Amino acid sequence: MVKDAVRWAIGIDLGGTAVKIAVIDEKGDVLDHERHETRLDEGPDGIAGHLASLSHSLFSRFCGKLGLDLFAGIGVGAPGAVHAAKGIVCYPPNLPGWDRYALRDSMLQILEEEYRLRSPLILENDANIAACGEAVFGAGQHYDSFMMITLGTGVGGGIIIDRKLYRGTRGTAGEIGFVTVDYRGERVHAGVRGTVESLIGKKSIVAMGIDAYRKHPESVRSESFHGSDFQNLSPRTLERAAHQGDPVALEVWNNVGTILGVGLAGAAALLDIRTFLVGGGIAGAGELIFAPARKQLSASLLPSMRDGIDIVAATLGNRAGVYGAAARCFSLIM
Amino acid sequence: MVKDAVRWAIGIDLGGTAVKIAVIDEKGDVLDHERHETRLDEGPDGIAGHLASLSHSLFSRFCGKLGLDLFAGIGVGAPGAVHAAKGIVCYPPNLPGWDRYALRDSMLQILEEEYRLRSPLILENDANIAACGEAVFGAGQHYDSFMMITLGTGVGGGIIIDRKLYRGTRGTAGEIGFVTVDYRGERVHAGVRGTVESLIGKKSIVAMGIDAYRKHPESVRSESFHGSDFQNLSPRTLERAAHQGDPVALEVWNNVGTILGVGLAGAAALLDIRTFLVGGGIAGAGELIFAPARKQLSASLLPSMRDGIDIVAATLGNRAGVYGAAARCFSLIM
Repeated sequence: MVKDAVRWAIGIDLGGTAVKIAVIDEKGDVLDHERHETRLDEGPDGIAGHLASLSHSLFSRFCGKLGLDLFAGIGVGAPGAVHAAKGIVCYPPNLPGWDRYALRDSMLQILEEEYRLRSPLILENDANIAACGEAVFGAGQHYDSFMMITLGTGVGGGIIIDRKLYRGTRGTAGEIGFVTVDYRGERVHAGVRGTVESLIGKKSIVAMGIDAYRKHPESVRSESFHGSDFQNLSPRTLERAAHQGDPVALEVWNNVGTILGVGLAGAAALLDIRTFLVGGGIAGAGELIFAPARKQLSASLLPSMRDGIDIVAATLGNRAGVYGAAARCFSLIM
Repeated sequence: MVKDAVRWAIGIDLGGTAVKIAVIDEKGDVLDHERHETRLDEGPDGIAGHLASLSHSLFSRFCGKLGLDLFAGIGVGAPGAVHAAKGIVCYPPNLPGWDRYALRDSMLQILEEEYRLRSPLILENDANIAACGEAVFGAGQHYDSFMMITLGTGVGGGIIIDRKLYRGTRGTAGEIGFVTVDYRGERVHAGVRGTVESLIGKKSIVAMGIDAYRKHPESVRSESFHGSDFQNLSPRTLERAAHQGDPVALEVWNNVGTILGVGLAGAAALLDIRTFLVGGGIAGAGELIFAPARKQLSASLLPSMRDGIDIVAATLGNRAGVYGAAARCFSLIM
């Protein structure tokens, strides 16, 4: 049985809430995709075991059909500072108690000892690997250099320069969420004042919305957010209110976009990167964020830095991570 | 007459006030150094002519002694966005009316037509070339990757990654002066609000000093700054007052360092560069700035980003530019 020699890989996106795992081929076709809960209470070894078990299970199911010879390996995106060359995860903020863990070696050992599976295994930071995914299979295909920003619970970033991932000296590059834009401000996140993430992380957007509606109780919308409790106020409902023309919600998104634009301008000034891909759950608000962000980005830069600058929607949604993990296995990006 | 085969070059640092030009050999010895006024009123062509004439004059004086064979060329650092490959200067803020000027070709033409001198000529942004100078002949020799920050009239920056200059997509990388740290603040520079340069450029430090002494008329120092006129208040006199223990001046430098630290933290988060070399006239204040900057840099970063982070004094002073221009001619850094 001779088939097209299309390589395949297993991509994993390890998050604080969920593990996403997919079988993806070199053409970018997703052959299977699963979502599991992250077993936070089992600690690093338990999670490594879980990832190994999930990988082995998918491997076994697809190996006969796709061919062992064409298996390119397992790619893992993990939160925190990731030392890609050493396969070590450091201080992942959403995986309490990990501190410093040799996730790659741990997974490799379990795969071999428990499942007799020897596989290449690459490890990268989650935001970096999402940028790789967009670079190879998503909106980033059209740009040699760009920064990918993920707006969600947190604000993450990954940098692609000349079609290569820029990791920095210790693997923490691209952390736009930790760029300070309001150093005298009130908001603090992870102990740091006035960062982009402290201002427009998911919780802060909700807080901003509640503040705004408290100040404008006359808004017909206030009612739909369950009065003074605002139980129903979420980025999603704020988005809907804005699309229906509610000026309070529009103003909230305008603020979010403005703050994003200020942060991106800092990245443009330092890195001289002109293309910003924005993805993640919050980015679903689209032009509600992008339009004010573009305006602010331009206003915060000198004319010489504005040429060709743009903000573009990422296209792989919450699968950018598994796509990127597979792309790294195929060495489609380094 | 056989001599050591040591190559030599002419390094030029074109500023808004002065042109610095030097003859430097490959070992880093400065054989001659001159300073001339920038002929702003003669426009781009006039300045190109002046630079060509100064170059030719030094070339003629040293060629016999050092050897034509060992002449490595002329290096020029210029303000604004510099397209190094094309030899074009765009929007130099301190050279009014330049907009977009092919400085390299213009100089080459004059050198050949007026002086029959054919020479390699490289052009780089002034802050970038200063970083090259420190990388090859200064404090940067000890680091593979660092960011060089120049504190002076403005706040400039240059980035060295793996011993190579990082120029960005259009030659404007490293502009830390245009990173916004106080987006709701009052201070504006070049039309942008709350940037590092708007807060700790030379004029702003003086303004900060005047404000501080106005608030503390009881300070014995107020008198020495010529009372309410503050004619004598300058970074230099503020520095002296701080070294003599004046709490008002100490507080001003503490603020300057804190703001610098916030800006550097943004660069560390984005670039994952851990070493910051600080030079320029204002950096003469040394630890008065560096100590609070280090403290803030650490406070503004996650633990995973702090490892190995430091702020170090640049060592080439205001000659970093001409050193870097020569280093580029010798291809000691690319």
